[in-house]
Amino acid sequence: MTSPAPAPPAAAAAQSPPPRIGLAGLATMGQNLALNIAEKGFPISVYNRTAAKVDSTLSRAAAEGALPVLGHRDPRDFVLSLARPRTVVLLVQAGPAVDATIDALSPYLDAGDAIAAAQTEDGPCVTFVGPGGAGNFVKMVHNGIEYGDMQLIAEAYDVLHRVGGLSNSEIADVFAEWNKGELESFLVEITADIFTVADPLEGSTSGALVDKILDKTGMKGTGKWTVQQAAELAVAAPTIAASLDGRYLSGLKDERVAAASVLEEEGMPVGLLEKINVDKKVLVDRVRQALYSSKVCSYAQGMNLLRAKSVEQGWNLNLAELSRIWKGGCIIRARFLDRIKKAYDRNPELANLIVDREFAREMVQRQGAWRWVVARAVEAGISTPGMSASLSYFDTYRCNRLPANLIQAQRDLFGAHTYERIDRPGSFHTEWTKLAREGK
Amino acid sequence: MTSPAPAPPAAAAAQSPPPRIGLAGLATMGQNLALNIAEKGFPISVYNRTAAKVDSTLSRAAAEGALPVLGHRDPRDFVLSLARPRTVVLLVQAGPAVDATIDALSPYLDAGDAIAAAQTEDGPCVTFVGPGGAGNFVKMVHNGIEYGDMQLIAEAYDVLHRVGGLSNSEIADVFAEWNKGELESFLVEITADIFTVADPLEGSTSGALVDKILDKTGMKGTGKWTVQQAAELAVAAPTIAASLDGRYLSGLKDERVAAASVLEEEGMPVGLLEKINVDKKVLVDRVRQALYSSKVCSYAQGMNLLRAKSVEQGWNLNLAELSRIWKGGCIIRARFLDRIKKAYDRNPELANLIVDREFAREMVQRQGAWRWVVARAVEAGISTPGMSASLSYFDTYRCNRLPANLIQAQRDLFGAHTYERIDRPGSFHTEWTKLAREGK
Repeated sequence: MTSPAPAPPAAAAAQSPPPRIGLAGLATMGQNLALNIAEKGFPISVYNRTAAKVDSTLSRAAAEGALPVLGHRDPRDFVLSLARPRTVVLLVQAGPAVDATIDALSPYLDAGDAIAAAQTEDGPCVTFVGPGGAGNFVKMVHNGIEYGDMQLIAEAYDVLHRVGGLSNSEIADVFAEWNKGELESFLVEITADIFTVADPLEGSTSGALVDKILDKTGMKGTGKWTVQQAAELAVAAPTIAASLDGRYLSGLKDERVAAASVLEEEGMPVGLLEKINVDKKVLVDRVRQALYSSKVCSYAQGMNLLRAKSVEQGWNLNLAELSRIWKGGCIIRARFLDRIKKAYDRNPELANLIVDREFAREMVQRQGAWRWVVARAVEAGISTPGMSASLSYFDTYRCNRLPANLIQAQRDLFGAHTYERIDRPGSFHTEWTKLAREGK
Repeated sequence: MTSPAPAPPAAAAAQSPPPRIGLAGLATMGQNLALNIAEKGFPISVYNRTAAKVDSTLSRAAAEGALPVLGHRDPRDFVLSLARPRTVVLLVQAGPAVDATIDALSPYLDAGDAIAAAQTEDGPCVTFVGPGGAGNFVKMVHNGIEYGDMQLIAEAYDVLHRVGGLSNSEIADVFAEWNKGELESFLVEITADIFTVADPLEGSTSGALVDKILDKTGMKGTGKWTVQQAAELAVAAPTIAASLDGRYLSGLKDERVAAASVLEEEGMPVGLLEKINVDKKVLVDRVRQALYSSKVCSYAQGMNLLRAKSVEQGWNLNLAELSRIWKGGCIIRARFLDRIKKAYDRNPELANLIVDREFAREMVQRQGAWRWVVARAVEAGISTPGMSASLSYFDTYRCNRLPANLIQAQRDLFGAHTYERIDRPGSFHTEWTKLAREGK
C-alpha cells in the first residue's frame, strides 16, 4: 500500500507522550469518538485510508481547542506512534473494510497489541482472551459456529420455499420479522436484505438475484479446522460438521445433477416426495422454532469445544466474556449471545448450554415444532443435515441410556476391549462366542 | 514372548531353498492347508503358538511322504526362515488371536512382507494396496467404516427395542435372520450371538448380559483420524462422523443422566415422546431397510475418502480390489462387499456408490421405509444420528439445487467472496446492502 507522506501532527499533541489509543476509521462516528477521547485529555492517534478525513479530523481538533490528536495517513506511522501494548479501535463499516484495515495495520503490530472492531452495550468487543494461540482458537470456533448458523438459515429458507411455497419477497419478510425477536442477529438481518435484491444484470422485473446464484459454496479453511479440532478434543460438534459437509457436497454440483437424474430413472422424483399441507403462518412459526433450537445445539457444541481446548491448554477461557465480545462487530453477533453470556454468568461450569434452566425450558417448548420440521423434511426428501444433526445431538445428550452397551459388547467380543457394568465396578471380559455356542 | 527351542526342520525340507510361504495357526484347517501346499511341491514354513500342533503337523508331513514342511515354535525363526518378500498366511480364529499372532510375528517382518488373515472365495484377503502409507490409510478407513456399521446396528437395536418392544431373544432372532440376507456380515452375526448370552455373574435366569453393560463406548483413535482426514480431503463423511460423536457422547454418561433429569423437570418425558403403533414384523422389515440404506451411504463415504487420498497421493488405489480383500478376515467383512466390488468392476470411476445402477435401484426401493424409521425416531425422541446422517447425505447428494446459493450470497455480502451465476460464466460481486437499502 502506497501512501502520501503523513500529515504533520497537530502542534499541541507533538509534545505529549505517545498516545495509548489509536483509532482507525474517520467517518462521522470515528471523528466524533476521536475528538471525544481527546477532549477528555487522552492523546489519540488517528488513521484513515482516505487522507481527506485525516485532514478534516485534524482541522476540527485544532478548531475545538488544540486537542491532542495525532493524524496519520500511513498505517505504519499510525501503529508505531502508539504506546505499547497498543490498542487500536476500528470504526469502519462491517464487512470487507474491516479485513482491509486489519490487513493494512497488522504487519506493524506486535504480540500483545489489540484491535477492537466495535462496541456492545456492555463494553467494547475486545478482551484479553488468553495466552498463546487462545485468540486464534476462539476466532476459529467463531467461524465454525458461523458455518453452522449459515447452514441452518439456508435449511430454513429451503423448507419455507419448498414446503410452504413462500416467494422470495415473503421469505425476506419472514427473516425481517424474525430479526425482531429471539433470532435477531447480523446473519438473519442480511438474509432478509438478500431476498429483496433484484438481479442487477437483468433488471428489477427479473426476480431476485439470489435465484441466479449457483449453489456451490466456497470456504477458507476455518470450518475444517474446527471440525478437526473437535474430533481431536473428543467434543461432538455434529452441526458444525454437517455445515462443513454441506459446503463440500454443494461443491459437487455436477455429481448432484447426475445423481438426481440416475435416481429419477430408477423411479425417484427429483422434487418433493410428499406434499405437506400446512398453513403458511404455522409453517413459518415452526421453522423459526426449529432454527432457534438447532442454533442452541450448535452454540453448545462451539462453547464446549472452547472449554475443552481451554482445559487442555490451561487457558482459563471465560465463556461468558467470549459470548459478550461476540455480541458486536463479528459475523455471529446476535441478541441470543447475551442469553448465553448470562447462562455462563449464572454457572461458569455449565456442562452444556442445553441444561441451563432457561435454555432447557426453551428447548422443551420448541422441540415439538422442531421435530415436526425435521420429520416432514425427512419424509419429503428435503435435506436438513444441520437441523437433523442438532436434533440428534439433543436426543443423544439427553438420553440416559444409549444403545452403546451393544457397541461395547461387540468390541469386547472381537477385540477383548472389556466393558464396564451398570451394577458393579470393574472391567469385565466375556467369551461371548463360546457362551453363545453353548447356549444354542 | 519366550518360546521353547524350535522343532528340528523336517528332513526333506532342510535341503530346499527357503520357503516362499509361511503359515501360522495349525488347527485342523491350518494343518490341512499347509500339507496341501507342501503336497503340491511348494516348500512351506509353519508356526503355532502351541508347540504340540507343530509336532503333529511335522508328523503328518513325514507320514504323508516327507512333504517339504519346516516347523517352528519360535516366531523369529519362523519369519526368518522365509524367502523375502515374505508371505505369511494366518489361520487363527478371528478376534484376539489374530492380533496376538501378528504381534508375535511383526517385530521380525520387513517392509514389503505381507500377512493374509483369511481367504475369500476369490482369493486370499491380501493384496498390494499401494506405496507409502497406503496400507495404513486403507486400514484406517476400514476402521472408520467399522465405527459406522456398529453405530448403525446399535441404532437398529434401539429402535427395535424401544419402538417395537422386542425382547433380547427376539432381537437375537432378528439379527440371525438378517444375517441370512443382504445384511450378512460378521458384525450382524456377532450381534445375534451377543443377544443370546446370559449374564455369567448372575446366572441364566437373570436375563441377557448386554443389558448389564454400561452404555459408555471406548475407542482407539482410528475413527477420529478418519473424520479428520475426511475434513482435510474435503470428503463428506457424516455417518462416520456421527459414529465418532456417538462414542464421545456415550462417554458423558453422568452428563446425560443429569440432562435427562433437568429436561424432565422442565416437562420433557425421559422415555418415548410418542407411542408408535406398528406391527412388529413391519417394523423389523423397515428397520432392516433403513439399516441397509444407511450402510450403503456410509460405505460410499469411506470409498470416496479412499479415492480422494489416492488421487492426492498418486497411489492409484483399486477400490474393487480393496472391497474384495475386505470380504474376509476383517471386522467389516460382509456379503455386501462383493456387490461393492462388482460396482467398481463395472465402473472404476464411479463417482459414488449411490449412483451405481444396482445400488441406486435398491436405495429407491428402500428409501420409503428408511424415511419412515428416521421420521418416527425423530418424533419419538430416539436419537438415530447415524441413520439420519446417512439420509441427509443421500438427500443432499441427490439434490440438484441446494440452498447453498443463499450461503454464497451471505459470503459475498459480508466478505466480498464473490459468487458464480447459473446463467453465465464468471465471478460476480454485488453491493447487497446498498441495493437492499435502495430497494426499500
